[in-house]
Amino acid sequence: MASLSLQTPAKSIGLVSPQKVLIDKPLTLACGTVLPTHELVFETYGTLNSDKNNAILICHALSGNHHAAGFYEGDSKPGWWDHYIGPGKAIDSDRFFIVSVNNIGSCFGSTGPTSTNPATGRVWGADFPSLRARDWVESQKLLMEHLAIECWAAVIGGSLGGMQAMRWSLEHPDKLLNAVVIASSMKLSAQNIAFNEIARRAIKSDPNFCDGNYLQQNRAPLHGLALARMIGHVTYLSDEALGKKFGRELASGDFIGSTEDPIEFQIESYLNYQGDKFSSNFDANSYILITKMLDYFDLSREYGNSPVSAFEHAQCNFLLISFSSDWRFSPKRSQEITDALITAGKNVSYTAIESNQGHDAFLLPNDRYQKTLSNYLRRLADQLGAA
Amino acid sequence: MASLSLQTPAKSIGLVSPQKVLIDKPLTLACGTVLPTHELVFETYGTLNSDKNNAILICHALSGNHHAAGFYEGDSKPGWWDHYIGPGKAIDSDRFFIVSVNNIGSCFGSTGPTSTNPATGRVWGADFPSLRARDWVESQKLLMEHLAIECWAAVIGGSLGGMQAMRWSLEHPDKLLNAVVIASSMKLSAQNIAFNEIARRAIKSDPNFCDGNYLQQNRAPLHGLALARMIGHVTYLSDEALGKKFGRELASGDFIGSTEDPIEFQIESYLNYQGDKFSSNFDANSYILITKMLDYFDLSREYGNSPVSAFEHAQCNFLLISFSSDWRFSPKRSQEITDALITAGKNVSYTAIESNQGHDAFLLPNDRYQKTLSNYLRRLADQLGAA
Repeated sequence: MASLSLQTPAKSIGLVSPQKVLIDKPLTLACGTVLPTHELVFETYGTLNSDKNNAILICHALSGNHHAAGFYEGDSKPGWWDHYIGPGKAIDSDRFFIVSVNNIGSCFGSTGPTSTNPATGRVWGADFPSLRARDWVESQKLLMEHLAIECWAAVIGGSLGGMQAMRWSLEHPDKLLNAVVIASSMKLSAQNIAFNEIARRAIKSDPNFCDGNYLQQNRAPLHGLALARMIGHVTYLSDEALGKKFGRELASGDFIGSTEDPIEFQIESYLNYQGDKFSSNFDANSYILITKMLDYFDLSREYGNSPVSAFEHAQCNFLLISFSSDWRFSPKRSQEITDALITAGKNVSYTAIESNQGHDAFLLPNDRYQKTLSNYLRRLADQLGAA
Repeated sequence: MASLSLQTPAKSIGLVSPQKVLIDKPLTLACGTVLPTHELVFETYGTLNSDKNNAILICHALSGNHHAAGFYEGDSKPGWWDHYIGPGKAIDSDRFFIVSVNNIGSCFGSTGPTSTNPATGRVWGADFPSLRARDWVESQKLLMEHLAIECWAAVIGGSLGGMQAMRWSLEHPDKLLNAVVIASSMKLSAQNIAFNEIARRAIKSDPNFCDGNYLQQNRAPLHGLALARMIGHVTYLSDEALGKKFGRELASGDFIGSTEDPIEFQIESYLNYQGDKFSSNFDANSYILITKMLDYFDLSREYGNSPVSAFEHAQCNFLLISFSSDWRFSPKRSQEITDALITAGKNVSYTAIESNQGHDAFLLPNDRYQKTLSNYLRRLADQLGAA
């Protein structure tokens, strides 16, 4: 892969496969509960150099997982951040050793509500302990030790992923050189919490939710979870992006002088399809758990509600990125983080990207976004003498 | 009431009571179905003058009804637009005869899904015919004839109410002198349709929905309807308004180092309360019917998709009002209407109001909004020689 020059178009990393590790050390969660052991599923891309200084941690968001790049055997769709991770790409697997982990409480193989509680021998379900972003950071720290990495070259994430990157900078300031915080926020707004609460109520109102014990009864609140996802989906996009993609196109028929009902707009079919697809691949208890984690996140609460006091504990450099049409995690939120970092005397770059894609922009191809990430990380690789 | 001078602060109109009329003429709906008769519940405020030229029609929106102003015996809360309707108020009952009607398909006494279908002797329920805004206009026209009003001095409405006012100007151009179109749009955006579709799916997913035949089974999809309303409610407010009202205040407890769950934010309790309150007062089939009416509304579809061609049919004057933080019916939508009216050579005033209250601003006290309405209608009353 070292033969790839900058003139060659970036290619996918190709076939990848996940790994699983049993972290055989107790993890004390923020809520006080101790997980004596836990399992983590993760993927790595690229090679850890002999100095072990080229490792990058990718932090996923609400519905993400460890499969960030490359393809699984037989799959036609690559990982969720394949646009940005791979040989010659912005997060360059030719130069960095990239670690992408499915976090605890999620539902893609790491310990979570669908796992068996060793203390009872039964599935955790709704009894899985409440989580905070710092719990994900501490679990990632144990994985870091397992991989014998001393210090991350960068911790990178969008949305909830950016919250983890910020939390890393405060909890383990000497364990990362850079935090890349994309489309994130120091805390959710009341509107954001409101949307999350509606999503949770949609799940809990589904009669198949059974107070969260649906797995034990071989049931699943598929309708509720689909609704929750539909709410998320539409708010992660911009009005403009939806308008451009769907307009008011009808899936069939007309709505003047027609007795036929229902007549569907294409946006309706699309949303229903997305909701149903998601609900067959995600766990409802995980959705509740992780939206709560988002709501609870409050960077500076324990620092006297002063973001500046909080960030004074950080030692790394920061790259902040926001997207103009993102109304769930608006550019104003990234500006607030940047302002606090500047006041705290930290080294920070902030790039506000023009995009009509809403919050989802952080996952989608965008030339300026790609260049911002790419330039920042290329300089970093050069400094580290990576590859 | 004529003794009220302009120096006296505006007072509520006081006790009011609704009237009911059986419209004994067939109403052919846009979908082709004919309602042989229908009932309308309405209220009036003020007195029709001898010239019968001082009548104003108030058009309600999705969840509104005929009770726009004054108090019912024993009620502590006035009608939904009492801030703006009453003696000495912007829509001045000392000078105008104000008619406020609950429209068909709604659920406050006028013929709708909760009424008995005379053809079957059973409740309409989900079989109530699909409606368009023009059907409300035609029903209002029959009420107008019943009241022996030849021409409205003004037709006024916010949101879906504004759509009715615009439709009046095209369908019966000689039957109104003014259309006051507040926080409205010539058609919904894909995002608006998406939110409505999620609301409908929330209702339909409720096992008590029973394919819309819940009344026949003495059931009601209260959870689904509450969810639908929660989605509407949060999108009718602005991020800023929610932030100012609730911030991230917790209803109780703390979320660091606490094992107690659930910990609620005040915004969550508020939303859940609002949703539950609404679902006990509204009918789910009506909610589906009227959100569909909103989605279908497309002012210029039958005019070659040209708003200018559409408005060339109008003869009345127009007042357009929008609110800066309204992201469901943004100022851009009112600007589009204004531009089309100007190009069509119509007489139009447009006032963009600063407000942090989102779409709900059209219902709430706002000094500049009050003055805009008040000045416009005072001039109108003077022209008409009203009172």
